[in-house]
Amino acid sequence: MAKTNRQVILTSRPEAIPQAGHFSLRDGDIPEPGDGEVLVKNRFLSIDPAMRGWVSAVANYSEPVPLNSVMRSIAVGEVVASRNANYPEGTLVCGMFGWQDYAVAHKDNIWFTHDHASGPASLSLGILGLNGITAYFGLLEAGRPKQGETVVVSTAAGAVGSAVGQIARIKGCRTVAITSSEEKRAQCRDEFGYDAAVSYREGDLGAALAEASPEGIDVYFDNTGGAISDTVYRQLNVKARVVVCGTAATASWDPWPQGERMERHILTKRATVQGILVFDWVDGYERARADLGQWVQEGQLNYREEFLDGIEQAPGAIARLYAGQNSGKLMVRL
Amino acid sequence: MAKTNRQVILTSRPEAIPQAGHFSLRDGDIPEPGDGEVLVKNRFLSIDPAMRGWVSAVANYSEPVPLNSVMRSIAVGEVVASRNANYPEGTLVCGMFGWQDYAVAHKDNIWFTHDHASGPASLSLGILGLNGITAYFGLLEAGRPKQGETVVVSTAAGAVGSAVGQIARIKGCRTVAITSSEEKRAQCRDEFGYDAAVSYREGDLGAALAEASPEGIDVYFDNTGGAISDTVYRQLNVKARVVVCGTAATASWDPWPQGERMERHILTKRATVQGILVFDWVDGYERARADLGQWVQEGQLNYREEFLDGIEQAPGAIARLYAGQNSGKLMVRL
Repeated sequence: MAKTNRQVILTSRPEAIPQAGHFSLRDGDIPEPGDGEVLVKNRFLSIDPAMRGWVSAVANYSEPVPLNSVMRSIAVGEVVASRNANYPEGTLVCGMFGWQDYAVAHKDNIWFTHDHASGPASLSLGILGLNGITAYFGLLEAGRPKQGETVVVSTAAGAVGSAVGQIARIKGCRTVAITSSEEKRAQCRDEFGYDAAVSYREGDLGAALAEASPEGIDVYFDNTGGAISDTVYRQLNVKARVVVCGTAATASWDPWPQGERMERHILTKRATVQGILVFDWVDGYERARADLGQWVQEGQLNYREEFLDGIEQAPGAIARLYAGQNSGKLMVRL
Repeated sequence: MAKTNRQVILTSRPEAIPQAGHFSLRDGDIPEPGDGEVLVKNRFLSIDPAMRGWVSAVANYSEPVPLNSVMRSIAVGEVVASRNANYPEGTLVCGMFGWQDYAVAHKDNIWFTHDHASGPASLSLGILGLNGITAYFGLLEAGRPKQGETVVVSTAAGAVGSAVGQIARIKGCRTVAITSSEEKRAQCRDEFGYDAAVSYREGDLGAALAEASPEGIDVYFDNTGGAISDTVYRQLNVKARVVVCGTAATASWDPWPQGERMERHILTKRATVQGILVFDWVDGYERARADLGQWVQEGQLNYREEFLDGIEQAPGAIARLYAGQNSGKLMVRL
């Protein structure tokens, strides 16, 4: 076992997208697990869009990460010392273990254990992790797609979006991807099975979307907000459902940005717009993971993973994500 | 029986709020009811905010009223000649009978019959009509208020809003009115039982709203949209429900107005925003009218009515409504 616990700490608050310079590396101590606790050696650290919010002082889901403390992060790792019989050594566990080599965990901060038989541990950060579970419940419980309906997904090639599109297809919907390049359009069609894929960076998004959605839009799974969403709202069908899962199109909420007023669309279409957070379905995680795992095994649900090697890659990884430079679920491999 | 059928026709399309000059009066023929039909002599014509949409060429719930045809209007009237045994002479019926003295009606355009025992026929245009039914289903099915929650209502003294506030109070909620004057604030508290009432025209609405809603806002019944709603959204609680019932704060949607982006509030609060239209609950009208009627009888549900006498008052009545000059449900009495 190593002698030190390498940790990435937050050293300043970004105004917008977190950059490498907002963090620094330090050598911390390896903690000792107490009674009922385990020591986890992290294998994979998750890089998520939500991290932008976690380091911001603006009100959000959770308290901001304090300055000069370890960056909050979902991770999956192996139990290397156990004082809890439910998690013997060798167990792979997933939870909010932070950007560091080692973390102490206990039953309340372990979200689930990763079954070795279900594939590499990294899957529990992506398609079998919160990304897949977000797609599953966000689409099925907030979006409520019916067979034959049209489902539009923004950041459609992303870790959540690509799962949304495929689950919608499994449920018999027409699926339309909104993404950022010709390359990602091809990926959406060929790898994630979308019926059509449009790019918001090429030509007239409204016209492309209308052509791709000839019967209008019944469900919009929204990871971006902003001008992309304005365009989608204009093409919603009566009784459409919009699932608000992310606001990636807006770089800063200070000052609060202006945009097209949405209330008239919501009223005249009798649409329902619902903000979601995966933690609201915590009691359903295992059910979602069982379905997702089965679809993966059957080859109905594809995913991509991208690894950055070494904890020193973590500080710059959020900016990489927001620049759209990744291809698939972005993780740091330790 | 009179020899002519006075009618108000739409002669030009308003850019914003319809004014008297967009209409004119003409003498039409009294129609003959066919087999299965009845001749209705209108008693009361309803003046509704939705009329602004009905005369607009912009996409809306329904086809725009054609130029040089009778203005679409909800009305209640008496059957004066019947060729349908279900509606004998003397029956009071409510439906979309238009701004005119006489209309032919049949089972498909009669929404409900007004029971003489339940009070004056005008009630079926207000508290026992679509206004009351909108408040009932919009609040209870889209707003889903729970006992002890805080319900905020915009245009809180209006025909819909005043019913929403009182139904929320009956369901055990704290009720907060947003209205436009000191006089209406007093009316909201004294007559409609709101726990607190704030005015968007006096001082800092955000501060007043925060003081009136010390535990945050769980349900927002939105009749205005616009800057008023922006202020309310900032104070929503987690899992808040917003019912979008009207957009009275916006005078024109051409060009489409800008405002604060709402998606971040919806996401971080996991709020649900739902646009409603009363016609989606048509199968429940009688259930709503039964509950509303009982609350009226028990003195738990107050309402105000304001009458303009004579069909020549109809053309200017919509502008009067938007100017907030009415006090209670505005109708034309014939």
